[in-house]
Amino acid sequence: MPQYVPVTDRKTMIAMPRVITEIDRGDLELTSAFVEIGVATTHEAQERTGLLNHRLKPRQQGVTIAGTALTCEVPPGDNWMIHVALEQARPGDILVVSPTSPCDDGYFGDLLATSAAAHGVRGLVIDAGVRDIKTLREMGFPVWSKAISAQGTVKETTANVQLPIVCGDRQISPGDVIVADDDGVCVVPRAAAPAVLRAARERAAAEDEKRALYATGQLSLDLNPTLRSGLLRKGLLYEREQGFN
Amino acid sequence: MPQYVPVTDRKTMIAMPRVITEIDRGDLELTSAFVEIGVATTHEAQERTGLLNHRLKPRQQGVTIAGTALTCEVPPGDNWMIHVALEQARPGDILVVSPTSPCDDGYFGDLLATSAAAHGVRGLVIDAGVRDIKTLREMGFPVWSKAISAQGTVKETTANVQLPIVCGDRQISPGDVIVADDDGVCVVPRAAAPAVLRAARERAAAEDEKRALYATGQLSLDLNPTLRSGLLRKGLLYEREQGFN
Amino acid sequence: MPQYVPVTDRKTMIAMPRVITEIDRGDLELTSAFVEIGVATTHEAQERTGLLNHRLKPRQQGVTIAGTALTCEVPPGDNWMIHVALEQARPGDILVVSPTSPCDDGYFGDLLATSAAAHGVRGLVIDAGVRDIKTLREMGFPVWSKAISAQGTVKETTANVQLPIVCGDRQISPGDVIVADDDGVCVVPRAAAPAVLRAARERAAAEDEKRALYATGQLSLDLNPTLRSGLLRKGLLYEREQGFN
Amino acid sequence: MPQYVPVTDRKTMIAMPRVITEIDRGDLELTSAFVEIGVATTHEAQERTGLLNHRLKPRQQGVTIAGTALTCEVPPGDNWMIHVALEQARPGDILVVSPTSPCDDGYFGDLLATSAAAHGVRGLVIDAGVRDIKTLREMGFPVWSKAISAQGTVKETTANVQLPIVCGDRQISPGDVIVADDDGVCVVPRAAAPAVLRAARERAAAEDEKRALYATGQLSLDLNPTLRSGLLRKGLLYEREQGFN
Amino acid sequence: MPQYVPVTDRKTMIAMPRVITEIDRGDLELTSAFVEIGVATTHEAQERTGLLNHRLKPRQQGVTIAGTALTCEVPPGDNWMIHVALEQARPGDILVVSPTSPCDDGYFGDLLATSAAAHGVRGLVIDAGVRDIKTLREMGFPVWSKAISAQGTVKETTANVQLPIVCGDRQISPGDVIVADDDGVCVVPRAAAPAVLRAARERAAAEDEKRALYATGQLSLDLNPTLRSGLLRKGLLYEREQGFN
Amino acid sequence: MPQYVPVTDRKTMIAMPRVITEIDRGDLELTSAFVEIGVATTHEAQERTGLLNHRLKPRQQGVTIAGTALTCEVPPGDNWMIHVALEQARPGDILVVSPTSPCDDGYFGDLLATSAAAHGVRGLVIDAGVRDIKTLREMGFPVWSKAISAQGTVKETTANVQLPIVCGDRQISPGDVIVADDDGVCVVPRAAAPAVLRAARERAAAEDEKRALYATGQLSLDLNPTLRSGLLRKGLLYEREQGFN
Repeated sequence: MPQYVPVTDRKTMIAMPRVITEIDRGDLELTSAFVEIGVATTHEAQERTGLLNHRLKPRQQGVTIAGTALTCEVPPGDNWMIHVALEQARPGDILVVSPTSPCDDGYFGDLLATSAAAHGVRGLVIDAGVRDIKTLREMGFPVWSKAISAQGTVKETTANVQLPIVCGDRQISPGDVIVADDDGVCVVPRAAAPAVLRAARERAAAEDEKRALYATGQLSLDLNPTLRSGLLRKGLLYEREQGFN
Repeated sequence: MPQYVPVTDRKTMIAMPRVITEIDRGDLELTSAFVEIGVATTHEAQERTGLLNHRLKPRQQGVTIAGTALTCEVPPGDNWMIHVALEQARPGDILVVSPTSPCDDGYFGDLLATSAAAHGVRGLVIDAGVRDIKTLREMGFPVWSKAISAQGTVKETTANVQLPIVCGDRQISPGDVIVADDDGVCVVPRAAAPAVLRAARERAAAEDEKRALYATGQLSLDLNPTLRSGLLRKGLLYEREQGFN
Repeated sequence: MPQYVPVTDRKTMIAMPRVITEIDRGDLELTSAFVEIGVATTHEAQERTGLLNHRLKPRQQGVTIAGTALTCEVPPGDNWMIHVALEQARPGDILVVSPTSPCDDGYFGDLLATSAAAHGVRGLVIDAGVRDIKTLREMGFPVWSKAISAQGTVKETTANVQLPIVCGDRQISPGDVIVADDDGVCVVPRAAAPAVLRAARERAAAEDEKRALYATGQLSLDLNPTLRSGLLRKGLLYEREQGFN
Repeated sequence: MPQYVPVTDRKTMIAMPRVITEIDRGDLELTSAFVEIGVATTHEAQERTGLLNHRLKPRQQGVTIAGTALTCEVPPGDNWMIHVALEQARPGDILVVSPTSPCDDGYFGDLLATSAAAHGVRGLVIDAGVRDIKTLREMGFPVWSKAISAQGTVKETTANVQLPIVCGDRQISPGDVIVADDDGVCVVPRAAAPAVLRAARERAAAEDEKRALYATGQLSLDLNPTLRSGLLRKGLLYEREQGFN
Repeated sequence: MPQYVPVTDRKTMIAMPRVITEIDRGDLELTSAFVEIGVATTHEAQERTGLLNHRLKPRQQGVTIAGTALTCEVPPGDNWMIHVALEQARPGDILVVSPTSPCDDGYFGDLLATSAAAHGVRGLVIDAGVRDIKTLREMGFPVWSKAISAQGTVKETTANVQLPIVCGDRQISPGDVIVADDDGVCVVPRAAAPAVLRAARERAAAEDEKRALYATGQLSLDLNPTLRSGLLRKGLLYEREQGFN
Repeated sequence: MPQYVPVTDRKTMIAMPRVITEIDRGDLELTSAFVEIGVATTHEAQERTGLLNHRLKPRQQGVTIAGTALTCEVPPGDNWMIHVALEQARPGDILVVSPTSPCDDGYFGDLLATSAAAHGVRGLVIDAGVRDIKTLREMGFPVWSKAISAQGTVKETTANVQLPIVCGDRQISPGDVIVADDDGVCVVPRAAAPAVLRAARERAAAEDEKRALYATGQLSLDLNPTLRSGLLRKGLLYEREQGFN
């Protein structure tokens, strides 16, 4: 794979499109372990942070993936930078794409998916549209996207690859952990991943216990006394009959 | 199940959060009979009223339920009252949840579904989000929701349970009949349920006749003469060739 | 099938509701051949034009159809004209419906689908809602719609049938070729259909070649030299480490 | 004004379009007093209930009105019932209109506004569109609507007048108090109006005191000790420097 | 102004970006006369057709314009073709711009407005965004747009100028009459303009009569007997008291 | 002003709500200079980056502000943290508020505005709702918000103050420069501010020159030769008459 050197020195601090070629991807085994946890529990385990806006929907059912963020910015209606990003892909990556202004065009289809899969990319998270969705489903290449649209794109304008981006209203840095399932997509900052994984596993165990008790008909209000006592403190009224409505 | 008495007397007529503990649920057999009718025919049979806004979408395919409304109001981002509502659940109920201001957070997941199912709740209708959707589908607990979102909620603020609410742009009273299928959700006022069921069954029979005739190629314009004669009265023009465009 | 003559002469040039009864449908075999091409490639083959807005979503999975546009305008909440349109249906047609002002009501259900199928209609494209979706799926009658809604409609007001309409933000003339699959819906002007089909087949062949190369891990940047050289010309920076952020 | 008797007896309990001709409008002086309170304080004074969805926007600036709800349901794209409702108008009424399924058409323009004003109607609240907005502004006839649209409507289908409706996601009964200003629209149930007015006036006085203190630079955290002590209880961290981000 | 000859012959019928340099603009005096009519009456006078979607909002208050459509297609995030379109501008034109896929970027600002005004362009109708809106208002250059957004655009890709486009869900041909005011935007096909103008003037006169009668308190139900008799035919019920709710 | 020390040590790296009390605000004079530049030119001067989503709209007309970001995260329906943030306010700050999940409630009204103004806060940017908008306008306290809504909020849950947030789809760090006018809101990273200001001033001067030339009727295609020559390279066709459509 060719390795570029910067073609120009920046004189100003003003951002110009760049590609960062060496990224700390952390421990892939640890990253992959989030696939057992899923989005909802990961999100709870980091104090309800990191969830992407649910406008990014799964475009298949029953699939969970976890991997390393490969971040890619795209201009509206222009997918050139996705081609550039695939050169940076490493096995275990999840491609995370966000347009510089909102756009639903179909940036990604079966050709790019074939290329991505060949480089070990585990899936796509995109705050825009995809196409060839039937083939993507048949290939088993999972996608979370804002839209499905066959609207084609051009290759005229550059943007950043492997720099921090905002996708689904959340900041994502290259190398962060991405978890995606039928509930949506969650990002875990690289540095926090070990602690979040530990907390998530504890939480999952506690939920298993609760689930067993709930299945017998026990009420959360009885299992968690503060839930019920709080109602009294707040002054919630219980009435047999409904007077005023 | 503990039975509260009101902790305070209301001095004003102004609404304070309340839970009504005794609700007229009518005849569960009659309520359940709507599962044979489905949403579209029920809605027609009560003169095209009672349909909830279609932003409440089925989160599974091919499932129809009918049951009694167990109504629950929730503050934005706060699911405490769903825990309170489950204490009021009776077999045959459908949990109907609406936020006091629009919110897509994931109020309801697999733990609450386990508890709800253990008390005979037939499904959830919520003008907000749900999560753990993969598990809900595996459990066979049906959901109609505005969103799927893993966004967690807190338990800090109270609201009404088993009082009339607006959900999906329609007023729903506790004890009303709820019908939900792949077309959406419809509410039938408790008092109107027997007449609507009767009208719906007549309508379904008439539709079966029509369907058989349509399948042979007969046109609705010919089977229903007023449909065609009305066109003449309205002055609809039939032209061979297209002149002005 | 009865044949109307215009019931009145237009004195003005101002549009009045009309039905055009004789439409050039071109060669049905050619039209049907687009089913092998699909939406994304058809759209690219005519220089990225003709794609309907992706708010018109497939209401089933894995189905592709191609056919002749049977165009039908409807007032908000009124499906009378769909009944009128079905009298104009010929085998190979796809019914294309658009409301005169935005409306999500359920204009079309299983009775109309039964009638449409009996006249050889291949599917429905509607910039509004449909209902009885469970039955439509069971019948195998494919639908692309803006919404699923059981909201019923009336039969009070007339509109145009088989005149050009705007549907999904695109102009569609009666007799145009419609292609629809999991990616959405595309319209090909009748006159352009032979050339577009030819270009689409060439394009599909070229994509097959690319796909095979991508599957081996080759990069688009290397297979298409202008993709890479353009990056240099645009001054895209490649950096090992991330300095300013 | 002519007085109809019902033209038919209802055999069923199923809803048919009706007009209720005698409505309890309560004390107009009390109703009108809400104009001094405004929407935000009224809404707070009834425990943050009754606010209509903010998609209903003021179509002028700086105008506050308060009056009695004259409720009117309309089919999509059909404004016949507004003509019927105006016959029921009394001085001090505010016309509240909601479509039976979502519709943005321009139901109401300068002719209807002229008629409404002539009967003492104080303004319009509509979960749909209006038109002739320039003239409405010039006339000083205030409007809160979901849309501005010149899209015309027909007069073909009936619906309810002066029955409870859902408008802007809230249930509104004929005779309820409506308050509307630049912040939106709030409904106060007729029976609760005296208590809400009293509570609102107390609240407004308390806010005046707070405002004076805030203007001197005092902090809400210092004026309201529980606001600050709660932070400690919740464990909010204060840090000089930002370590982990 | 330089005059290009086509640089290539089209071998296929497939659309390629083109600029049509000679357009039938009809009679500018007739076109300009629509400024007295306004959007709502024009729309009614052509049987409620031609209204653009109300997502195109006026970005100033109290301004009405009428002129000749100068049509311009733009790729997402690319305003090159607006520069090309301005070369085709003639006094009395209104620039009508539509993106090939939905985009809210700010395609047009004060520089382009200065250039447009210098060539006699009366205003802008754009199914996308504009910027420098404060300056546009100060200049008195009127705009109807889908958005206000400072998001800049590139100049990389070509598209059609002075060909028919879909803008705001309506087909607009170069040379059509455009009318825009606080109610939105309406298009009148060039050929229909004289008849529509005539019908609009008659309608406006009739409305003046009605307005005068309404102002005296007369009801539309009494002035238009079919409005009232229709209610009886439809079986609308008038009731003193409200029984079932 | 009291100075807290952290009440607990974090054992994990997982984020907990925090307030950072010492922020680098840079040079306020430099920050304030952006008020002369405005949003569109600032955005262009930093290579079309930093613009917030245009769903954040100005709630007044003709006002431009520039200041230092005081960042504040809020839970849905809970404005406690805005009270906390005001304790951190310094003259020249602009309060930037974003909810942890999307919410349109009215977080901020005239009382908070009074307090903010008393501490030298120049305005509010909020990806949610505000209320008391009439009073805010009368006070001259400028606001850019996603919504106007009187919906009240509670004070139950904590969140971050003065940490980086995503607001309007852009990452904003405490101390960044915020510019807001009728076109929307733009963020300039603190470190880039001097270079962006320099570039913006150059750009503004160049635009003044262009504007003068455009006002005389000169075309951008002639003033910028690459704009016209590019058309030839792309093969744009100029045709007298319109053949195929």
